[in-house]
Amino acid sequence: MQPDLSSLLQQALKELDYGQQPAALYDPIRYIMSLGGKRLRPLLTLMGAQLFTDELSSFVKPALATEVFHNFTLLHDDLMDQAPLRRGQLTVHEKWNPNVAILSGDVMLVRAYELLFENVSLPLLPQVLRRFSQTAAEVCEGQQWDMNFETETTITIPQYLDMIRLKTAVLLGFALELGALLADAPAADAEHLRQFGTDIGLAFQLRDDLLDVYGDAATFGKRVGGDIISDKKTFLLLTAQAQADAAQQATLARHLGQPVRDAEAKVQAVRSIYDELQIRPQTEALINDYFQAALLHLERLQVPAARKAPLRQLALQLLERES
Amino acid sequence: MQPDLSSLLQQALKELDYGQQPAALYDPIRYIMSLGGKRLRPLLTLMGAQLFTDELSSFVKPALATEVFHNFTLLHDDLMDQAPLRRGQLTVHEKWNPNVAILSGDVMLVRAYELLFENVSLPLLPQVLRRFSQTAAEVCEGQQWDMNFETETTITIPQYLDMIRLKTAVLLGFALELGALLADAPAADAEHLRQFGTDIGLAFQLRDDLLDVYGDAATFGKRVGGDIISDKKTFLLLTAQAQADAAQQATLARHLGQPVRDAEAKVQAVRSIYDELQIRPQTEALINDYFQAALLHLERLQVPAARKAPLRQLALQLLERES
Repeated sequence: MQPDLSSLLQQALKELDYGQQPAALYDPIRYIMSLGGKRLRPLLTLMGAQLFTDELSSFVKPALATEVFHNFTLLHDDLMDQAPLRRGQLTVHEKWNPNVAILSGDVMLVRAYELLFENVSLPLLPQVLRRFSQTAAEVCEGQQWDMNFETETTITIPQYLDMIRLKTAVLLGFALELGALLADAPAADAEHLRQFGTDIGLAFQLRDDLLDVYGDAATFGKRVGGDIISDKKTFLLLTAQAQADAAQQATLARHLGQPVRDAEAKVQAVRSIYDELQIRPQTEALINDYFQAALLHLERLQVPAARKAPLRQLALQLLERES
Repeated sequence: MQPDLSSLLQQALKELDYGQQPAALYDPIRYIMSLGGKRLRPLLTLMGAQLFTDELSSFVKPALATEVFHNFTLLHDDLMDQAPLRRGQLTVHEKWNPNVAILSGDVMLVRAYELLFENVSLPLLPQVLRRFSQTAAEVCEGQQWDMNFETETTITIPQYLDMIRLKTAVLLGFALELGALLADAPAADAEHLRQFGTDIGLAFQLRDDLLDVYGDAATFGKRVGGDIISDKKTFLLLTAQAQADAAQQATLARHLGQPVRDAEAKVQAVRSIYDELQIRPQTEALINDYFQAALLHLERLQVPAARKAPLRQLALQLLERES
């Protein structure tokens, strides 16, 4: 995708020093940071900066703040969601215990701030910290809304879209904006980059909702139908509930909020209703709307078109890939 | 104590805006911040600054970062310790739930950083953030050591003192140092203030250990003997274990790590051994050592003696009071 930038990031990640003692505090940080992943957020920061400059070396460490922050949210979210696995490996609260997960996550948030204020030039620092903190609080708000929604019965589509915007999209937006801020780009460009990233993030999350139902089991990476089995209120389900007729409502009600006897039957029944209501093309249309909105922001950036090609290419890859 | 500074802080605390929606994220922050307490840490910051300047109004908000951070640690620590009450009121994880406690605590850490970088002048900001972050990580280290010690059998006195230094004392030291940093005081003075606060913090925590065994039930605020009942490895117990003869070791072993049948009998038996070994005067001697070391740092500060009187007075009050 961006082999040079990726290897730059991987190398710098390996060299990060989170702390040593007590081991129960710092080993979990090294562990979760070593589980891999695409390192998408710091890559977006460097690609955002690369629109404006080719001198990226001093941006690598502040870019990693987004990766450390992202993994902090995974660590605490996995605990809150009681998830047993992360990227096929035991989650920190399972491998150690819940208290270790709380405390090592707390230190990761501190380390994310350190990566910023130790590596961002002084005139840029207040705005970088302000936008990072605002984003951090928004990501927490998104996670809280997501947890609230588990027990709420009436969630509107706008509420759902706002939840995924906060929980997932704003950090992608900030990662790109950070690149512009570090490169001291014009404020309007930083704002377009932020909105480009946020819209791509919304499209990406909706695509994840879609793949959970219609994805290829071989490449999706999670169990296809998992959202249906767990009654997760996704864009697909909320749209179906809003559009279902009486018979379809009854079928949905028979399957949702009940103990799952036959998971395969439940997935098939709910998917049939999605098919009847054409939920898939509706979702794809919304994904495309966000994608087009994102591209419009990219177009409006005041840099030569050739410089924008890698970001456009990355956005396409993100939305076409199956995982 | 410092009525003007205290009311200044109380007023500013009331005006802090942590956020609004979702309520489950922000209500717990307002709740724990409203439970009261001495507001000791921001008071120390203002008193530290007051050594060097009488113009304190711009330091009130950054001073509150130490109070928000302190309450963040209380919120997460109470969850980790499964404490039901904080200052006589339900803890956040009891009043809401554990996930709310994790997430609202996370946002409090973000808000503490915001109080610093939004209110500290740019040239001072990197050092303020560096020292705050270092302190924050150390407080987490102290909490992790404290949890480790619950299941470890051989803890030395130096290990215990280092734990309480990290968990409790360094934040008091930083609160004072922050006052010096904000007032742009000489680095040597900031360092003496930090060490003054750390030594007072160590004395204060040892005094708390002592009061748990020898305090007046009417004024201590917690159940006298609570540490003994829960086998808490305090300075008193570790010293007793290090100095006990075979018979005393046997008595201790009979009471520690066993289900508590008669709490009063356990407290009396362990306290008798403390009395035989003169643990109380030994602890008082160590408290006094730290107090004298603290005063030496205060003396070495390059400001007129009259300016130092309030801090000396506060230190005396902290170590003489029963709660």
